[in-house]
Amino acid sequence: MRAEGNDGAWHEIGDLNVSVALRGEYRDVHLTGDVDSPEAFGILLARHFVTSQPVIHEAPIRIEEYAWERVSVPTRKEQHSFVRKGQEVRTAQITYSETTELQVLSGLKELTVMNSTNSEFHGFIKDRYTTLKEAYDRILATKVTARWANSASAAADAEHDWDRSYGKVRRHMLEAFAETYSYSLQQTLHAMADRVLDNVSTVNEVRLNLPNKHHFLVDLEPFGLKNDNEVYFAADRMYGLIEGTIHRDGVRPVIATSDWITA
Amino acid sequence: MRAEGNDGAWHEIGDLNVSVALRGEYRDVHLTGDVDSPEAFGILLARHFVTSQPVIHEAPIRIEEYAWERVSVPTRKEQHSFVRKGQEVRTAQITYSETTELQVLSGLKELTVMNSTNSEFHGFIKDRYTTLKEAYDRILATKVTARWANSASAAADAEHDWDRSYGKVRRHMLEAFAETYSYSLQQTLHAMADRVLDNVSTVNEVRLNLPNKHHFLVDLEPFGLKNDNEVYFAADRMYGLIEGTIHRDGVRPVIATSDWITA
Amino acid sequence: MRAEGNDGAWHEIGDLNVSVALRGEYRDVHLTGDVDSPEAFGILLARHFVTSQPVIHEAPIRIEEYAWERVSVPTRKEQHSFVRKGQEVRTAQITYSETTELQVLSGLKELTVMNSTNSEFHGFIKDRYTTLKEAYDRILATKVTARWANSASAAADAEHDWDRSYGKVRRHMLEAFAETYSYSLQQTLHAMADRVLDNVSTVNEVRLNLPNKHHFLVDLEPFGLKNDNEVYFAADRMYGLIEGTIHRDGVRPVIATSDWITA
Amino acid sequence: MRAEGNDGAWHEIGDLNVSVALRGEYRDVHLTGDVDSPEAFGILLARHFVTSQPVIHEAPIRIEEYAWERVSVPTRKEQHSFVRKGQEVRTAQITYSETTELQVLSGLKELTVMNSTNSEFHGFIKDRYTTLKEAYDRILATKVTARWANSASAAADAEHDWDRSYGKVRRHMLEAFAETYSYSLQQTLHAMADRVLDNVSTVNEVRLNLPNKHHFLVDLEPFGLKNDNEVYFAADRMYGLIEGTIHRDGVRPVIATSDWITA
Repeated sequence: MRAEGNDGAWHEIGDLNVSVALRGEYRDVHLTGDVDSPEAFGILLARHFVTSQPVIHEAPIRIEEYAWERVSVPTRKEQHSFVRKGQEVRTAQITYSETTELQVLSGLKELTVMNSTNSEFHGFIKDRYTTLKEAYDRILATKVTARWANSASAAADAEHDWDRSYGKVRRHMLEAFAETYSYSLQQTLHAMADRVLDNVSTVNEVRLNLPNKHHFLVDLEPFGLKNDNEVYFAADRMYGLIEGTIHRDGVRPVIATSDWITA
Repeated sequence: MRAEGNDGAWHEIGDLNVSVALRGEYRDVHLTGDVDSPEAFGILLARHFVTSQPVIHEAPIRIEEYAWERVSVPTRKEQHSFVRKGQEVRTAQITYSETTELQVLSGLKELTVMNSTNSEFHGFIKDRYTTLKEAYDRILATKVTARWANSASAAADAEHDWDRSYGKVRRHMLEAFAETYSYSLQQTLHAMADRVLDNVSTVNEVRLNLPNKHHFLVDLEPFGLKNDNEVYFAADRMYGLIEGTIHRDGVRPVIATSDWITA
Repeated sequence: MRAEGNDGAWHEIGDLNVSVALRGEYRDVHLTGDVDSPEAFGILLARHFVTSQPVIHEAPIRIEEYAWERVSVPTRKEQHSFVRKGQEVRTAQITYSETTELQVLSGLKELTVMNSTNSEFHGFIKDRYTTLKEAYDRILATKVTARWANSASAAADAEHDWDRSYGKVRRHMLEAFAETYSYSLQQTLHAMADRVLDNVSTVNEVRLNLPNKHHFLVDLEPFGLKNDNEVYFAADRMYGLIEGTIHRDGVRPVIATSDWITA
Repeated sequence: MRAEGNDGAWHEIGDLNVSVALRGEYRDVHLTGDVDSPEAFGILLARHFVTSQPVIHEAPIRIEEYAWERVSVPTRKEQHSFVRKGQEVRTAQITYSETTELQVLSGLKELTVMNSTNSEFHGFIKDRYTTLKEAYDRILATKVTARWANSASAAADAEHDWDRSYGKVRRHMLEAFAETYSYSLQQTLHAMADRVLDNVSTVNEVRLNLPNKHHFLVDLEPFGLKNDNEVYFAADRMYGLIEGTIHRDGVRPVIATSDWITA
């Protein structure tokens, strides 16, 4: 829980869930301070562990931030009431070690998005086990999990504005999702990651995990009704999970690909 | 999944999870139609079951609606992209029977709110098992589950604007939460329910389930630091669950009180 | 957490999650004692609240118990190691009030059972919306939630063996599920509840919530394979939720029917 | 869903949740066959993908298996009724590629265990932020997630008995947990992994994720009661997550360490 400018007239809420892993030796600690972002707080924590205890040589930190928005109360000057936004969870993973560069991965998860048209899927490879039907106007829906690796210079820059770069990445991903006429979720994944790399110079690598949340057109013909792309069944399973990492040329990718993220 | 005005230029998304219970005899059915709200859809469904099958004499329906908001894309005229709001889930429970009046309960759940100040709790009864400390400036946080009973005339009115009354109830509850200087969560519960009854004439009864999400001030003195109401630990348990029903005089309460809602 | 006979040589584990509701006035309390069962502990707690505070006139208590089993270690005399059974959760709901009789509901939840054959479903009412196919050899699977009302004399009997009656009810329900050749889940529900009432004299009423966990035969013909009732797809949705209360003649049912239990 | 020997007299239940990732190109497929274990089924699937489609060069498969046990019905010869065990979930991860050896990781998750005594924790490094108290007789509880790498020869052996080796690993881990007088959860982790490597020759590497599920002694002194290690509060948070990989000398570890597993 981070609260800044706690001066009676204006509160800011920081709601963090912090996980710390220590490699070398193991201990628990909790620090506090006025910090601007999960990334800045994580860097502070990771440095503390590695520099204060000789037995610890690497400290990865994971932070989740839950966003709140102010409830506007027209009748009052003081505005101390908040409602949890409940949309995406912001994530940060900071790894500080004695021997390698400071590594800052930013991210988000649980951001559910949908295009109600402008999506097709056909022409895919078929063999004798293929049952999926080709689609020429489908709903495209997914729950985005994204992580992006920030450049070493951004990580080392004490003045780097993490909240601003987070906002930029989020906006560019959403716009790319909305603007892409999609022939596959794989193509949309590329478009989203490319858009970020094209527009946010401090990001070197983007990894996306996009479960394909299928929406099947309900067959209303048995009931004498026509379903003109209006009524869908949102299936829980099966689903395809599309994953991929896009990185700048010459940059060694650092985001782990081994952890499968379930829908 | 409700989609209206699906004319290529403008899509509306309705994302519904529908549960139907049938008393008398049992069957499954799925209808479709252009409907404006979970309440209107539920009334349609409930009437269908009871009037179409002689063995069914009562049909309670439960609907959950997940809200979506449009992603604004400046470069395009068509706006077919949506992001799930992820805040509260809207609920409706409609019971239609052969022998009693149509009953429409509206509601919401999973709306997490917080006041960062203007809350106290002291002067409560203490016995030899009491360990809770008195608090003179505390954080008040809760996850709101609300259900309200609509009047029989509103339920019977085919023109009733359910979306508008939902918006009004939600706004008045939030404003009452924000504006109440709270001496207990019980008092805040009363204020929220009273505000709805005072301002929304078609609502006769309000039931609220408010888990008290305790925020404990972290003791920083062992570390030589002062914690001036800035750093809190958001505890998962124990929590108190404050529940209550407020109804108009002369109105028989109809919302079930037996189901404990867990935080 | 209940530990009895904690004498170094033999530990018993009681792992309880206790919820207390107080009607009249509100307070939190925690007691301890050597108790044999969730029911006995709940009766103790409920009596304490109502008798010790004049403002409290009714105290419903809910308890969940998670079962543990001992890890057998051949090489040691001391046996202090346990593994959580992870099967059903045992529940109890005790309501003590100044004006009505002590009410003790016992129960269980999350007990998933399946019959791999001996189940059919056909001959049901069909109308123009019916799509469900008739089945002559199907898998029957459900996740049992059960609550049963104990007689007033059992509740008042300080020597009543709650663990034993729990074991009997559980066994009779499972045996009835296994032995019933089922023409519908509704019929199986009746058989399970009847079996309990026939065999456990201290139980007056049984309520069961049985979501029908459909298993659909996978169509392997497109792949040139035959599926002789061997490969099924376990669907998450749609599912039917079969609920019902069976009680002895002349007994007024007391278990709430309003809370829908989701699968 | 795997059912073998489906001959009317005896059914076996296989309940699998299968995830397939394809690297190179992407597609969905579902196969079936009589298989003995998740590992054998995963090897079959992985081989199929890589050998049948030139664009696919690597296929990692993940499988979860949920265990069922037969309900014994004394009155019947046929035994077709099952109850879900609900204890640990068995896992398998198979990676088949054109260029590297077949890799088979077996595992389990959600196995909750507890030692009610024979655990201490003291003598740890303290600095000015340390608040954890030393403990000389504590409860040790954790929810085990384990993965182990099988040797290349076991993976290549079509006759390898995967169910038997699973049972052996599980038993040795449980026995080591039960028999180890623990001075730290880290020490217990080592003992569990070492025991497996000492006793199961086909396993080369063991990775364990052990969240420390703290049980705090409840202070009953304010109530005039003594708590002689009998009543504990099972805390949800904070918790420490102890992770580690133990492997044979000369073996290159292959299990990913990047995915933090949450309690």
